[in-house]
Amino acid sequence: MNGAESLVRTLVKGGVNVCFTNPGTSEMHFVAALDKVDGMRCVLGLFEGVVSGAADGYARMTGTPASTLLHTGPGLGNALANIHNAKKAATPMVNIVGDHATYHVQHDAPLTADIEGIAAPVSHWVKTSPDAKSVATDGAEAIAAASAAPGQIATLILPADTAWNAADGVADVPEIIGRAKVSDSAVEMAASALRSGEPTLLLMTGQALYEDPLNLAGGIAAKMGAHIMSQGSNARLQRGAGRVSVLRIPYVVEQALDVLKNYKHIILVGAKIPVAFFAYPNTPSLLAPEGCEFHTLADLSDDMVDALERLADVVGAKRSDAVRQEADRPGRPTGALDYDTIAAALGAALPEDAIVADESVTTGRGFYPLTAGAPPHCWLNNMGGSIGLGMPLATGAAVACPDRKVLCLEGDGSGMYTLQALWTQAREGLDVTTVIFANRSYAILKGELAKVGAGNPGRKALDMMDLSRPDLDWLMLARGMGVEGSRVSSADELNKALDAGLATQGPYLIEVML
Amino acid sequence: MNGAESLVRTLVKGGVNVCFTNPGTSEMHFVAALDKVDGMRCVLGLFEGVVSGAADGYARMTGTPASTLLHTGPGLGNALANIHNAKKAATPMVNIVGDHATYHVQHDAPLTADIEGIAAPVSHWVKTSPDAKSVATDGAEAIAAASAAPGQIATLILPADTAWNAADGVADVPEIIGRAKVSDSAVEMAASALRSGEPTLLLMTGQALYEDPLNLAGGIAAKMGAHIMSQGSNARLQRGAGRVSVLRIPYVVEQALDVLKNYKHIILVGAKIPVAFFAYPNTPSLLAPEGCEFHTLADLSDDMVDALERLADVVGAKRSDAVRQEADRPGRPTGALDYDTIAAALGAALPEDAIVADESVTTGRGFYPLTAGAPPHCWLNNMGGSIGLGMPLATGAAVACPDRKVLCLEGDGSGMYTLQALWTQAREGLDVTTVIFANRSYAILKGELAKVGAGNPGRKALDMMDLSRPDLDWLMLARGMGVEGSRVSSADELNKALDAGLATQGPYLIEVML
Repeated sequence: MNGAESLVRTLVKGGVNVCFTNPGTSEMHFVAALDKVDGMRCVLGLFEGVVSGAADGYARMTGTPASTLLHTGPGLGNALANIHNAKKAATPMVNIVGDHATYHVQHDAPLTADIEGIAAPVSHWVKTSPDAKSVATDGAEAIAAASAAPGQIATLILPADTAWNAADGVADVPEIIGRAKVSDSAVEMAASALRSGEPTLLLMTGQALYEDPLNLAGGIAAKMGAHIMSQGSNARLQRGAGRVSVLRIPYVVEQALDVLKNYKHIILVGAKIPVAFFAYPNTPSLLAPEGCEFHTLADLSDDMVDALERLADVVGAKRSDAVRQEADRPGRPTGALDYDTIAAALGAALPEDAIVADESVTTGRGFYPLTAGAPPHCWLNNMGGSIGLGMPLATGAAVACPDRKVLCLEGDGSGMYTLQALWTQAREGLDVTTVIFANRSYAILKGELAKVGAGNPGRKALDMMDLSRPDLDWLMLARGMGVEGSRVSSADELNKALDAGLATQGPYLIEVML
Repeated sequence: MNGAESLVRTLVKGGVNVCFTNPGTSEMHFVAALDKVDGMRCVLGLFEGVVSGAADGYARMTGTPASTLLHTGPGLGNALANIHNAKKAATPMVNIVGDHATYHVQHDAPLTADIEGIAAPVSHWVKTSPDAKSVATDGAEAIAAASAAPGQIATLILPADTAWNAADGVADVPEIIGRAKVSDSAVEMAASALRSGEPTLLLMTGQALYEDPLNLAGGIAAKMGAHIMSQGSNARLQRGAGRVSVLRIPYVVEQALDVLKNYKHIILVGAKIPVAFFAYPNTPSLLAPEGCEFHTLADLSDDMVDALERLADVVGAKRSDAVRQEADRPGRPTGALDYDTIAAALGAALPEDAIVADESVTTGRGFYPLTAGAPPHCWLNNMGGSIGLGMPLATGAAVACPDRKVLCLEGDGSGMYTLQALWTQAREGLDVTTVIFANRSYAILKGELAKVGAGNPGRKALDMMDLSRPDLDWLMLARGMGVEGSRVSSADELNKALDAGLATQGPYLIEVML
C-alpha cells in the first residue's frame, strides 16, 4: 500500500466518505487510490471554489467533514474564498493539497509555492506530511482537527513522493475534542438576566438554530417574556411550520440598530457580540445600544443543547412553552416581479424538507418573512461574506441529501464567481433548482457607495457596479454546462418556472429578470 | 482630497494607467475617486482571477505595471493563482486590496481575514496603509516595488477609513531599482565556454527573448557554433519571419533530457538551471546531463541586452551574423482535425503583429514549429503552471495593445477556471480570437497518471480527468457572455473560422472539437 492509498483508507475509516476534487499531476496517486478503495464518493469540480464551497454545503448538512483534493498552492488559492466562508461558518473540512515531491521543491519549478503560507490564514490546522509512512497518521489527525467542536478547517499537504512511496497501513482517528459543557455560573448569569424584568434577547447561531434547541430557547423566551433572534448569517437554520421562528439581525446597520435598540441584556448562545458587516463613516461598528449587557451562555464550541436545557430547568421553562410558527403560505403572486412578489412565489412553492442555499444578496432581504410558514426546511447563509458560495454550497448540500430538494437563491453577480458549479450539478444529477436574480449589477454596491459617503457616482464608477453591456444570458450559460432552465419576467411565469424546477429530478435554473 | 483620491492620482502620476477591478464595499471610495481623476482606465472583471491574469497580460506587453482592485482577503484569494503565475513571470503588478476600516477589524466581521498573510506567499512587497495621510506615499512605494527589475508583485492593503479620511496630496515614485550590469567575469566565463570547442547552449528567457537581444544571441551562436534555446515557458517571446528562431525546452521530461543530452556548457541568460515541471518516480528533477557546466551570464533582473552586447564584443560576433527565420507558412490544411492540422491552420492564418496567449496545454505542443515562419508576432506562456491564465492574459494583452490582434489558444479544461474573461472582452470590445481545444478532458492528466506510475486508472479515476457527461458547449458559454463564435470539426472549418475570427474587430470564439 502506498501513502496515497493509506490516506484514502484512513479517510474512509474515519468517516470521510466524499471527496470533492480538482486534481493535478501531484494528486495522481491519490486519484488512483480512489479506484482501489470502496466507500469514497468522488465529485469533480471544474474550479476549486466549487470544490471548497461544496465541501462546506456537504458538512453543514451531515455534520461530518468532506475532503477536498486540490492541486498545489494555486489550486488552494482558487479554493481560498470558500474555505474562508467555511471557516467563518465553523464547518469541518479536510483539505488534501498535493505538492511536488519533497526532493523537487528545492528546484523552484513553476508550480512551487508556499502552500503552508497560503493555507494558514484560512486553516485551523496545517501540516505537510514528511514521508509516506506518516501520511495515514497525518490524515487521521486532520480528521480529528476538522471534527473538533464546533468544526474546523484542516489542511494536509501531501508531497507527491509521500503519496507514491510505501506506507505502513491505515491509521485510527485520535480522540476528537467535542463540545464542552458550559459552567453553572454561565447558566445562572443568563437566568439572572432573564429574571431582571428588563428587555432581554437570546441571540443565537450554530447548533442553537436546530429544531430541538430552538424549542428550548422558544420555551425560555415564552416563559420569561424574552425574545429570540439569530445572527444575520447562520450556517444552518431549521425553520418553517411547526418550528420556532427566529428573526435575523438585518444587514442594513440602521435597521439592525433599530431592532436591537431596546435590549438591556443580550444572552449569547453561540453568537458573537453583534457587529456591522462593514464600517461606515457615520455609523457605529457595534450594533447593540450603549449600556446593553452581554451574557455568554455558550460559545460556538459549547454544547448549546445542554446549556439551553439547563437554562430552561433553572427558569422552569419547557419546550412545550415555545410559540411555534403556524403553517402559513402566501398566495401565489400575480403581476410584475418585485422583491415582494418574488418572496411570495418562493413562499408559496417551497417544498417540505427543502434546503435553501441563500446568496440572494440585495434581492433576498425580504424572503425570510414570506417563507416563515412554509413546510419545515433548512436555510443556509454565507457567513464569510465572500460572494460566490451559493451554487457550490447548494451542490454540496445536494450531494449530502439526495432525497431533499435544494433551492439555490443566487444573485447574478455572485453567481458568476463560481458558475462552474452547474456542471457538477449536471454530472452528478443533483436535485438543485437555482434561481438567479438578474438585476445586471452589483446592486448592493450602489447602496454601499452612497452609505460610505462616496458621493454621486459618475459613469466610470457606475460601470464598475454594472453587469450590463453585454447582459449575461444565464440560460445560455447553464445550457453550456448541461443544465436546462427558463427565464421569467412576471410573477406568473416565476410560479410556473418554480413548479417546473421543483418537479424536475435534477438541476434546473430559473433566470428572474429584474 | 481623501486617501483614495490621493492614491489614484499617485498611481496615474506614477504611470499606472489601467486598473483591473472587482470591487466591493471597502473599495467604494477608490471607485468614486476613479471618476474624479483622468488618466486611469478601469476594466471590470466578474471574477478576480480575470483581474489578476489581465494585469499580467497588460504588463507583459507594456513593461509597466497595471493596478488591480480587489475586495478584502477572499477577493485577493480569488486572484491568487494568477498572481502566482505573474510572480513566476516576473511581471510588475500593483494590487490594491480594500479592507475594513482600521477600527472595525477588531470586531471580526464576516469578511475580516489575514490579508497580509494571504498576500505574502505571492507578493514581493506587502504593506497595509496605517492612515489616509500615508496612502499616497505607500502607493508610490508600491509602484517602485512593482517596477524593480525584473518586475515584482506589490500588494497594498487599504483599510476603508484610510480611503475616506483626508489626505495630504499626491506622492512621487521613489527611485526604482533598475537592471544591473553583469560583471566582466560573468562575460569572460561565458566567452570561455563558447571558446572551449565543446557543445554549448545559450539558455534564455525574459528580456533576452526580445528581438534585439535575440539577434545578439543568434550572432554569438552563429559565430561560435553554439546553440540557443529558451525555457519551456517564457513571459514574452518575439518570434516569426525575420527574427532569430528559438526552440523551447520540451515539457515532457524524456524529450527535454534528449534535447539537452549533448551539452557540456549551458550559459544562462535570465534562465534558471533547467528543471522538470514535475518530479516522477523514475526520472530526474534536473534536465541537463551530469557533468554539464552552468555559467550564469545574466540573472533575470540583470541588463541582458548589455550582457549579450559585451559577450558579442568579446567573441567578435555581430547581430548580422545571426541566422534569421525565413518567412515560411504551412499550406492551409484539409481533412480531419488533429494536432498537426490544427498547428498548420494556425501557422497559415497567424496575422502580422499578433499576440499569442498560449495555454493550449496538451493540444498545443506542436504549434511552435509550424508557426515559426509566420509574420512577426509575440508568444506568451503560462510560467506558473496554474491553468486558468490564458483568457485573462489575452484580455490584458488586448487592453495593452488595441491595434494588435490577440490569439488565445486555450484548453477546455483550463478555460473553465476563468471563463468570465470573455465577458470583459465583450464589454471592452477587445480584439481577441479565442480558440478552445475541446478534448473534453484534462488530457494532460491521463498521461501524467501513467508517468507517475499510478497504474491503470479505473472508472472513478478516469471520471476525475474527464470533462464529459455533460459535454461543455463553449458556444453557449461564450454567447451567454456576449461573445459570438463558431464550432469546427474539420481542418477546412477551422481555416474558415480563423478567417472569420481574425476579420472580426472584437472578441470571437472558436470551439475546436477534438
